[in-house]
Amino acid sequence: MTPPQPTLGDLAERFGLVLRGDPARPITGVATLAGAGAGELAFLANPRYRAQLAGSRAGAVVLGEADAAECPADCLVAADPYLAFARIAALFERRPAAVPGIHPSADIAPGARISPGASVAAFCSIADGVVVEEGAVLGPHCIVGPRCRVGAQSRLVARVTLMQDVAIGKRVLIHPGAVLGADGFGLAFDRSADEPHWEKVPQLGGVVVGDDCEIGANTTIDRGALGDTVLEHDVRLDNQIQIAHNVHIGAHSALAGCAAVAGSARIGRYCLIGGGAGILGHLSLADRVTVTAMSLVTHSLREAGEYSSGTPIQPNRQWRRNAARFRHLDEIARRIGAAPKESEP
Amino acid sequence: MTPPQPTLGDLAERFGLVLRGDPARPITGVATLAGAGAGELAFLANPRYRAQLAGSRAGAVVLGEADAAECPADCLVAADPYLAFARIAALFERRPAAVPGIHPSADIAPGARISPGASVAAFCSIADGVVVEEGAVLGPHCIVGPRCRVGAQSRLVARVTLMQDVAIGKRVLIHPGAVLGADGFGLAFDRSADEPHWEKVPQLGGVVVGDDCEIGANTTIDRGALGDTVLEHDVRLDNQIQIAHNVHIGAHSALAGCAAVAGSARIGRYCLIGGGAGILGHLSLADRVTVTAMSLVTHSLREAGEYSSGTPIQPNRQWRRNAARFRHLDEIARRIGAAPKESEP
Amino acid sequence: MTPPQPTLGDLAERFGLVLRGDPARPITGVATLAGAGAGELAFLANPRYRAQLAGSRAGAVVLGEADAAECPADCLVAADPYLAFARIAALFERRPAAVPGIHPSADIAPGARISPGASVAAFCSIADGVVVEEGAVLGPHCIVGPRCRVGAQSRLVARVTLMQDVAIGKRVLIHPGAVLGADGFGLAFDRSADEPHWEKVPQLGGVVVGDDCEIGANTTIDRGALGDTVLEHDVRLDNQIQIAHNVHIGAHSALAGCAAVAGSARIGRYCLIGGGAGILGHLSLADRVTVTAMSLVTHSLREAGEYSSGTPIQPNRQWRRNAARFRHLDEIARRIGAAPKESEP
Repeated sequence: MTPPQPTLGDLAERFGLVLRGDPARPITGVATLAGAGAGELAFLANPRYRAQLAGSRAGAVVLGEADAAECPADCLVAADPYLAFARIAALFERRPAAVPGIHPSADIAPGARISPGASVAAFCSIADGVVVEEGAVLGPHCIVGPRCRVGAQSRLVARVTLMQDVAIGKRVLIHPGAVLGADGFGLAFDRSADEPHWEKVPQLGGVVVGDDCEIGANTTIDRGALGDTVLEHDVRLDNQIQIAHNVHIGAHSALAGCAAVAGSARIGRYCLIGGGAGILGHLSLADRVTVTAMSLVTHSLREAGEYSSGTPIQPNRQWRRNAARFRHLDEIARRIGAAPKESEP
Repeated sequence: MTPPQPTLGDLAERFGLVLRGDPARPITGVATLAGAGAGELAFLANPRYRAQLAGSRAGAVVLGEADAAECPADCLVAADPYLAFARIAALFERRPAAVPGIHPSADIAPGARISPGASVAAFCSIADGVVVEEGAVLGPHCIVGPRCRVGAQSRLVARVTLMQDVAIGKRVLIHPGAVLGADGFGLAFDRSADEPHWEKVPQLGGVVVGDDCEIGANTTIDRGALGDTVLEHDVRLDNQIQIAHNVHIGAHSALAGCAAVAGSARIGRYCLIGGGAGILGHLSLADRVTVTAMSLVTHSLREAGEYSSGTPIQPNRQWRRNAARFRHLDEIARRIGAAPKESEP
Repeated sequence: MTPPQPTLGDLAERFGLVLRGDPARPITGVATLAGAGAGELAFLANPRYRAQLAGSRAGAVVLGEADAAECPADCLVAADPYLAFARIAALFERRPAAVPGIHPSADIAPGARISPGASVAAFCSIADGVVVEEGAVLGPHCIVGPRCRVGAQSRLVARVTLMQDVAIGKRVLIHPGAVLGADGFGLAFDRSADEPHWEKVPQLGGVVVGDDCEIGANTTIDRGALGDTVLEHDVRLDNQIQIAHNVHIGAHSALAGCAAVAGSARIGRYCLIGGGAGILGHLSLADRVTVTAMSLVTHSLREAGEYSSGTPIQPNRQWRRNAARFRHLDEIARRIGAAPKESEP
């Protein structure tokens, strides 16, 4: 596949951007401000990188109106330069076209229905009752268990596991190592037995993933215990995220790497959950709640807004002194006569 | 497999529960209080969901004595309604029966011993010296390395990796993506070299998993450096947990998702480790220690009980003000004349 | 392969150690102080285990000069006993020799170049444009995507996924479940659409891993968005680590399990990142920065040294009282007349 060679004028027209410079300039690729060469288009969206603009050797730059005057190269002025760049960069993606059809090494149960326009790569294992819709792509080593559905144009990049009763919408992208539909962590404790022990609570539900979701590498989404675990449309999960049974995540919410959501929690729409953040079970988060990285949510958050927990990073010697004092903070507060506070944080 | 259709009377008798209502009522399935229909059995165990009882359309409900009077439907009264429900729900699980035998695509070394009653699915790769006992099930894409043993009735659901010298007990359940027996993180630093650098410490031990354990999706359990990493019987690990080399976990302990235990730590029996919690290396936790979610254990915990670290979730603006003060907490404490505290938290 | 049977004298000579005892003593294996038998060699490096020395039944012990007098057995005195032990233990590793050649079940694209001295195991899937160098070993179920390179003597233990444009140096060791080269988490928010939503930012870069790196089980390293994600040589990553797009990690740095590094962060050389620690995006860490376990780095750390965040583990009842006070810490500080502090932690 030959990469495209649009001109700057083509890009301005196609994406509705204001061109300052030579419309005939050919653009051969995209790159960072620091790394771009003369034929390449760079972008400036994060003010952190503004200082790199003057020295950039990019042929052209996508940026906001406020930075255009400082740009040493041609530029495309955008209301939202990051979004404009994302769209332009998509022209330069070189993803090998998946060939429709089923690789001879794949193991397909007789009762599976694979659309003729779908692509199934080497060593896929597909069970009875599966439906793979038109244009869906299953990369190598995918496992699709009983009664799963993969919607049109969705892509299981490679080594994705869908256990059973997992319904994937359209245009969903799932990265390697993701496991959807494994059993939730349901345990009942038999305290009256001679040797008290755990008994497994059967996990009987499925997983429903809406259209246009993205699910990162090695992320896990458990099946519901009863009923389903649900991601509404346009939910975006980064790598190594854990979504427990019966969680419900509203449309357009995004969770960064290593976040974890415990069972039956309900996250609203347009929420942003920072990397490594945790949300305890059975809680509700309102729409447009932001949780900063590595914070732990221990009660429901009823109002939109940004929430945090934790303490600031410090040189270890200082931190040790402060942390030692934290152990006696209630005593310190009492000493200065602060009113007793609720003991429930 | 036709699902069973027991009556309420059957269930009461089988599980030793007190029936209030029509013993002839057929039960066609299990569901939540909110989702159950007329033929279905729901349960009430968590008081959080008590308000759903009055409006439930369930045909019958498993609940405790204290809630029975409020139940609008027939009910089964149990001393432990969650445990009773778990046992009843198991009747309604529809797990495809694994057919004994070895899938033709599997790659089995000549020196592996697979019981005739075991089941090995597509694309499994089994090395020399492996023993797979009666009734064990290896789902698709499992890798079982040299000298591993899979005990009777154990199930490697799919895509499970056992590297080498991994001994799995009976009735163990391991979910997709789990990796047992990878090398521990053992490094020695050569500080006297011209360019100081790491050298790998050989990892020579194995992993021993007792009977009735469950291991979640994408969880990792490293082999011992010398000697074995050990899970006693009935240990329950959720998804994405990291167990480092030579960790020892006592019987009946349960770890929630994303917990991590560093090398040579020793966890007692009946411990509960919350999601995302961390336990540093070479520590000991007594029996019946509970660690709350995302807490970090930095010293041994010699007494049973519940332990925590961290700060409460707050709106970000408030949190920022408080966190900024934490950086100077020792100074604040000194100012009010609090006695100097140990600098070792 | 018969394990070697060196004498204590052989080991002293080979590794430049001082022998106290019988040079003719045969050493049949290595073990812990507590577990070693009469023919085995143990070591004492961590003072935590000093009390085990007197009772050890080891045939010989590697230890430092300070402990030699207390040793009840023969000993090898080393300036760095852990390093010396690591080197000796390597003699006793029994790793099956990988047979050069390609397993018949592997799926190799015609345009892949596999060195005749490389080994490719069952069910590997190798794409066009791949180069696998001399002595490289790909264990079962590895996926190597377009234009990847696996350097000489490197080992993908099993079930490793390299997506595309991933360049692995020489003598690199990658454990099962690791995913290198999946898309980074790049999203642009289209706020002007009728229903505001996310758009994917194309991820166009690769991953470069230097010589002598080690990458743990289920660890993920995303491809760069533009340009590459880079690990310099001798970088050591434990299990379940998340490295986001365009991160750069300097030579000889080591990250413990479950650590996570957000996009475009830059970590210096000889850094040590504790388990579960997080580093936010676009930050820089100087050489020789140590971050303790589960700390969150929210700003660049310009100077070498040890850094921490968090609070100490406490019995839950005490912790609750202190944590409740943390919510009002700014108020407490004001009350005693402490100067207002920056609101930015």
